[in-house]
Amino acid sequence: LKELANSILNDINNGQYPKIVLPDRSSKNVLFLPDEGKFKVGDLKSTKDSRNIRHAKNFHQFMWTAYYVYRLLKNNRTSSLRDLYYSSKGYGVNFKDQDESDRIVTDLEAYLGVPRESFGIFPEERSAIFGDLTIEYTVHGFEGKSVNLSSNPDGFSIGPSITNSKFIKTNAQIVIAIESGGMFSRLIEESIWKSMNAILIHLGGQAPRSARRIIKRLNEELGLKCFIFTDADPWGMHIANVIVYGSRNSAHIPDLVTPDAKWIGVYASDIEDYQLPAMNLTDADLKKIDELLLDPRYKEEPWKSQLLEFKKIRKRAEQQALSRWGLSFVSKYLKEKIENEF
Amino acid sequence: LKELANSILNDINNGQYPKIVLPDRSSKNVLFLPDEGKFKVGDLKSTKDSRNIRHAKNFHQFMWTAYYVYRLLKNNRTSSLRDLYYSSKGYGVNFKDQDESDRIVTDLEAYLGVPRESFGIFPEERSAIFGDLTIEYTVHGFEGKSVNLSSNPDGFSIGPSITNSKFIKTNAQIVIAIESGGMFSRLIEESIWKSMNAILIHLGGQAPRSARRIIKRLNEELGLKCFIFTDADPWGMHIANVIVYGSRNSAHIPDLVTPDAKWIGVYASDIEDYQLPAMNLTDADLKKIDELLLDPRYKEEPWKSQLLEFKKIRKRAEQQALSRWGLSFVSKYLKEKIENEF
Repeated sequence: LKELANSILNDINNGQYPKIVLPDRSSKNVLFLPDEGKFKVGDLKSTKDSRNIRHAKNFHQFMWTAYYVYRLLKNNRTSSLRDLYYSSKGYGVNFKDQDESDRIVTDLEAYLGVPRESFGIFPEERSAIFGDLTIEYTVHGFEGKSVNLSSNPDGFSIGPSITNSKFIKTNAQIVIAIESGGMFSRLIEESIWKSMNAILIHLGGQAPRSARRIIKRLNEELGLKCFIFTDADPWGMHIANVIVYGSRNSAHIPDLVTPDAKWIGVYASDIEDYQLPAMNLTDADLKKIDELLLDPRYKEEPWKSQLLEFKKIRKRAEQQALSRWGLSFVSKYLKEKIENEF
Repeated sequence: LKELANSILNDINNGQYPKIVLPDRSSKNVLFLPDEGKFKVGDLKSTKDSRNIRHAKNFHQFMWTAYYVYRLLKNNRTSSLRDLYYSSKGYGVNFKDQDESDRIVTDLEAYLGVPRESFGIFPEERSAIFGDLTIEYTVHGFEGKSVNLSSNPDGFSIGPSITNSKFIKTNAQIVIAIESGGMFSRLIEESIWKSMNAILIHLGGQAPRSARRIIKRLNEELGLKCFIFTDADPWGMHIANVIVYGSRNSAHIPDLVTPDAKWIGVYASDIEDYQLPAMNLTDADLKKIDELLLDPRYKEEPWKSQLLEFKKIRKRAEQQALSRWGLSFVSKYLKEKIENEF
């Protein structure tokens, strides 16, 4: 951020209109690399040039956002995207709507090459974590305090404090990321976190970036293998897929992708194998499947064959459909699935 | 539950078709009592009579649900509404869909006169709590363990364990219930929980019943006064109103209502008073306002005059609009609002 400020200052001191050069995020410059299994932003650059009248407003917005973020960091504070948008009003910075300010924050991510969470901008919390992991907080007012994340059986919300905490100690050996809150509670209650030595993460639908970041950190810093457990439908599959391969929208942030994570179910083929209560796929589901069949992230196994299986059986099932065999059956199911991966 | 089983057994032993008599929950039997400021179920009864072929399926479903709940309690376990629905499949109990099994659970609440949370049936978690409150868990595997709810600055999810915990110790003097997660995080980060000695509750939109139950318990067991802080729009108002007056749907459960709680904002009149960035009310907003103007829960102040004010100015604002005066401004705002109430 200081380099940014200095470069602007230099431009002005040299009698030039200041400008900002950052990676181009338009679709022509975002490529999927099949060998590495992830998206990458190419070498094209985009420029916000204050000399160009069409860029001037955008330039101004970018500089104010950088200033806002600088103050957050200096004061060890955090903010939501929404707070940032409203704060701009107090400075007379003119964002048409929050979509516009969100886009500028993404520009700043691309410029700095780090996710917004590392400069204090967080989304609303909706994911949660539970398991034998002792963390130490680094946020304002809690520096040096530590907590073990198995101490509240309802789970801990994953917010700024946990995302940016230091990992101190764990006896866990794996991570299980779970689509629904009901199933997350079930795995805690069935003591599966203990019997399988697992840290559990509740994704709450499509994984928020803070949850993806925690999974990445657990995998990388602690060497824990991560398994993803979703509903048996194309949306559940895609939740898992984005954790493994990333998304086009966050191609500029490599730190959110965990190539090593495995989707373990519920598979389309499990619907028959485990005789699960199932519903018919809707037209929207079938359209999504056709869309994913063309997606480069779905060329490998198990992705491709499970998509084709969904298309064949035209059925979907929820994680909790496993309860038809009793509330504890999920434990047996997960053990079978995870042993297959070792 | 044992009485229920005994009464069925007696009917059979006496050569009679067994039947179940429970309070009638249809709208003709749910009354709003203006003096007490809450809904009440009247004296009419409804009967599930196994002799009547049209009741037989319903009778069977009710008995299975009572059996399911009995096993949960016996094993000190919990279940979601969804798990209950799927578990029924394993017993050949025929629920058309989850709506049908949810309705039977509500019948059981009416029969037993307690909310489903007290017999182990919980919704998905989405509310959270933070503040100086030491609780002791009573759930399976965590009996006797205690935790202070200010130990994780991201907040604690409110699930079965916290809802049913024992309150051990607090230095807090008030409770602030907050509509949005962004604002909840802000109040933690601004140390408002400390400077105002407040326990903070994140409602996550329309308050889930577990959050309403915790608010009620904090008010009743610890004598803490509760303040509700929402967006300035008819939906935000109604979130607050349901905490104070309850809802028609849960008229049969008195334990969820906190008549003593106060809605402190954001008021329609605050939009002008604090010059907040505002948006136009939509047609749906205006329709909701007209609907609420006819609602018996909106006859008193501040409800009525704020509805009329919304109608006049035709504007809405979010809680986070306060950030236009800086991220810390909310602290000043809340102090002004809460001091007015003492």
